Amino acid sequence: MKQKENILIIGAGLCGSLLALRLAQRGYNVTIYEMRPDLRKTDISSGRSINLAFSDRGNKAMKLVGLEDKVKSLCIPMHGRMIHDKQGNTLISNYSGRDYEFINSVSRGELNALLLSEAEKHENVTIYFNKKCKSVNFEKTTALFKDYESKTEFVEDADCIIATDGAGSVLRKSYYLGKKFLFSFSQNYLTHGYKELSILPTQTGDYKTYKNALHIWPRGDFMLIALPNLDGSFTVTLFLSYTQGKFNFNNLTTPEIVTEFFNQEFPDALKIMPNLVDDFFKNPTGTLGTIKCSPWHFKGNTLLMGDAAHAIVPFYGQGMNASFEDVVEFDAILEKHKGNWETVFVEYEKTRKKDTDAIADLAIDNFHEMRDHVGQAIFQEKRKIEITLEKEFPKEYASKYSLVTFNENIGYEEAMLKGRAQDKAILNLLSNKLISTNDNTSTILDKVKKETEVILNENRIAGL
Amino acid sequence: MKQKENILIIGAGLCGSLLALRLAQRGYNVTIYEMRPDLRKTDISSGRSINLAFSDRGNKAMKLVGLEDKVKSLCIPMHGRMIHDKQGNTLISNYSGRDYEFINSVSRGELNALLLSEAEKHENVTIYFNKKCKSVNFEKTTALFKDYESKTEFVEDADCIIATDGAGSVLRKSYYLGKKFLFSFSQNYLTHGYKELSILPTQTGDYKTYKNALHIWPRGDFMLIALPNLDGSFTVTLFLSYTQGKFNFNNLTTPEIVTEFFNQEFPDALKIMPNLVDDFFKNPTGTLGTIKCSPWHFKGNTLLMGDAAHAIVPFYGQGMNASFEDVVEFDAILEKHKGNWETVFVEYEKTRKKDTDAIADLAIDNFHEMRDHVGQAIFQEKRKIEITLEKEFPKEYASKYSLVTFNENIGYEEAMLKGRAQDKAILNLLSNKLISTNDNTSTILDKVKKETEVILNENRIAGL
Repeated sequence: MKQKENILIIGAGLCGSLLALRLAQRGYNVTIYEMRPDLRKTDISSGRSINLAFSDRGNKAMKLVGLEDKVKSLCIPMHGRMIHDKQGNTLISNYSGRDYEFINSVSRGELNALLLSEAEKHENVTIYFNKKCKSVNFEKTTALFKDYESKTEFVEDADCIIATDGAGSVLRKSYYLGKKFLFSFSQNYLTHGYKELSILPTQTGDYKTYKNALHIWPRGDFMLIALPNLDGSFTVTLFLSYTQGKFNFNNLTTPEIVTEFFNQEFPDALKIMPNLVDDFFKNPTGTLGTIKCSPWHFKGNTLLMGDAAHAIVPFYGQGMNASFEDVVEFDAILEKHKGNWETVFVEYEKTRKKDTDAIADLAIDNFHEMRDHVGQAIFQEKRKIEITLEKEFPKEYASKYSLVTFNENIGYEEAMLKGRAQDKAILNLLSNKLISTNDNTSTILDKVKKETEVILNENRIAGL
Repeated sequence: MKQKENILIIGAGLCGSLLALRLAQRGYNVTIYEMRPDLRKTDISSGRSINLAFSDRGNKAMKLVGLEDKVKSLCIPMHGRMIHDKQGNTLISNYSGRDYEFINSVSRGELNALLLSEAEKHENVTIYFNKKCKSVNFEKTTALFKDYESKTEFVEDADCIIATDGAGSVLRKSYYLGKKFLFSFSQNYLTHGYKELSILPTQTGDYKTYKNALHIWPRGDFMLIALPNLDGSFTVTLFLSYTQGKFNFNNLTTPEIVTEFFNQEFPDALKIMPNLVDDFFKNPTGTLGTIKCSPWHFKGNTLLMGDAAHAIVPFYGQGMNASFEDVVEFDAILEKHKGNWETVFVEYEKTRKKDTDAIADLAIDNFHEMRDHVGQAIFQEKRKIEITLEKEFPKEYASKYSLVTFNENIGYEEAMLKGRAQDKAILNLLSNKLISTNDNTSTILDKVKKETEVILNENRIAGL
């Protein structure tokens, strides 16, 4: 194996800084170029979400690099969704029937800072900030940068270049515009956007609403969510259509209309958001898009990772977890084929892409589920049955949500196929009155397992 | 209604010339700009396929503009697939159990020439050739053209611009690069390409193999097909991976290897293709891609139609038919909302896009079906049952293929949903031994209908 190879990473976000740390642990020379200032020294929010859901797939990556405990101290457990209706009534819906399964709210900035500092502890890691990648010459394995401080441009060479530069990836753009090979690519926007707002702490620094839940105000066509921060605040996100419905981003143009909207739809939230109007008009409206592409690599020269390869919508809370899992998967394949970057890149996409495609689709499904399904009786009955099965048969049953979120040892694709079949099985059995929530739980488990097998088998025969 | 509005059409291919004709019949002033020379005066093949499958959806459009009879004279009926195995044995598999349902082979050039000439009969139609659109300013409703003859550039203004400029659409590129609105877009390439070859007529001008079929040599990972032309020749197309398998486009580099490949895999075809090597190295290798995008329109200014909005792979023989159906659907909505282009464009995409998305997906399905499924016993039994049901119950049963191809009064999406459920129903019943090909046909029909309803209902409940 050629050691001390020079790896250039574009983007020092969550995925790039974790990748740098792991490659440094493996002994590579790593240089990262980041367009933004060092977030440990400057306050930058840059329009990306402030806190994120962190769960078992992400944690698997933290274990790999030895940071599980440090990250834990940044986490606030969220055991379930706290659902708020229009009257301000709340209902807790746990994420799992197993008490030890929960997700966490974590600050993007804190986690990113930790990863950067841990990476920088390695002498074979160099991080440059304020240097924006303008284009990548993937045939020559060079990248053109603009230094925002000196206003000059320069070209960097490397043994291989890995772009972890997010949904707007410059390497991906260079693939697309280069037209040197068949590049499959999709960008699909939802007709909804999002805006970040906040619930500030009380005067004494306490949480104004229940700390250990993901709060959700589902309203059919739109919704509000809130995740806790360590400082006692919550980051609140409004998901809303740009153009459709009585209230939408295009017509929420004055403080009066915004306040009226919240007063009608989220009165209990409004009460603890005196800063609503300020936040609303200060913060940008973000887009919600899914990006898929292929191939991720060009020969053994360049590779896309994280959001650069597969940006997803946030509705499964898996964006960061998927990017962290990328690093785990990549690391395993690097271990197997190190010394041959092209083989590593080919194998990595081959094993990984089916799973990142799956989580992209699951995240879109969940957008519809959170808006349309949570209110329907049959879906609520299904959820009740799932939670009961998980409680009574913790080793035998895991819902789709649990398979995706808490079962890091199976891939997203397998979780999706099995989880969808289970969902369909329970819905079939409920709608045909073959099970009911009052039945003996062993009988329910038995029937659900059998019906799931039938569905999976029929799909196999149909070639699905 | 504002009459005598000026419509600018970019691209005088099949969709553009039909659209021009229809808009001229409605009294609009139509100007078409086409980048290629006039195909009625110059022989241009331009890398696009020479003959195409023409069926009922396309014919609906010909009826609309009064050209059904003229087009019929250009058509060669193909009643089924003639399947050739490696030993040269052949088997006819009809497209339908109903004798009057068949598809047609038609020359792209002849059909396009007819549409252009019919459009030009209207004094309110002007067609310019050798003028390439370089970009569209969709905010100003102007387009920039380069005149290939005078080498000059000029800008054209119109009341609205409709781009029917194919898979490489310049208007679509202008939408994408303009970044003036959220533009969802995907281009997905298969890892297979295609190459056109030919079976020339006999010395006496006769067909060297059976005329009235679509010939197919399915070989799992690759295949050869042939469609008849009026002059006694067949246009042959090889679909093959670029890089995978023993033989692929990347390694078919010498006359010897190409001949060896055909000798091993398609010996009966090789016997009637003495010109194989010449064709192979003269003709380009084409890519197979699917393009989807949204929105198709910008305000009431510009609109994408045909392949420009939804390019599909050729495996369902629906590319041209879908583009012709675009014009029929557009015409119906124009009739309803004429005078308000924005409403027309919005409504058109709303009613049409679900169907063009469906045929894109169906075409990909058929790629797998033709390669993988046609050889499997259970799929052959399914096909046998379908043909029997169509023969015995011509008014009560239509297979997925028939729904898509011969049932122009239901949309592609409905055809897909119903067709897929029927496929799954028959496969379920066969694999669970609840029907067999020897059963009474009324019993089979009954069971298939019931199982189809169960599947459709379960999908509805699961929100699929």
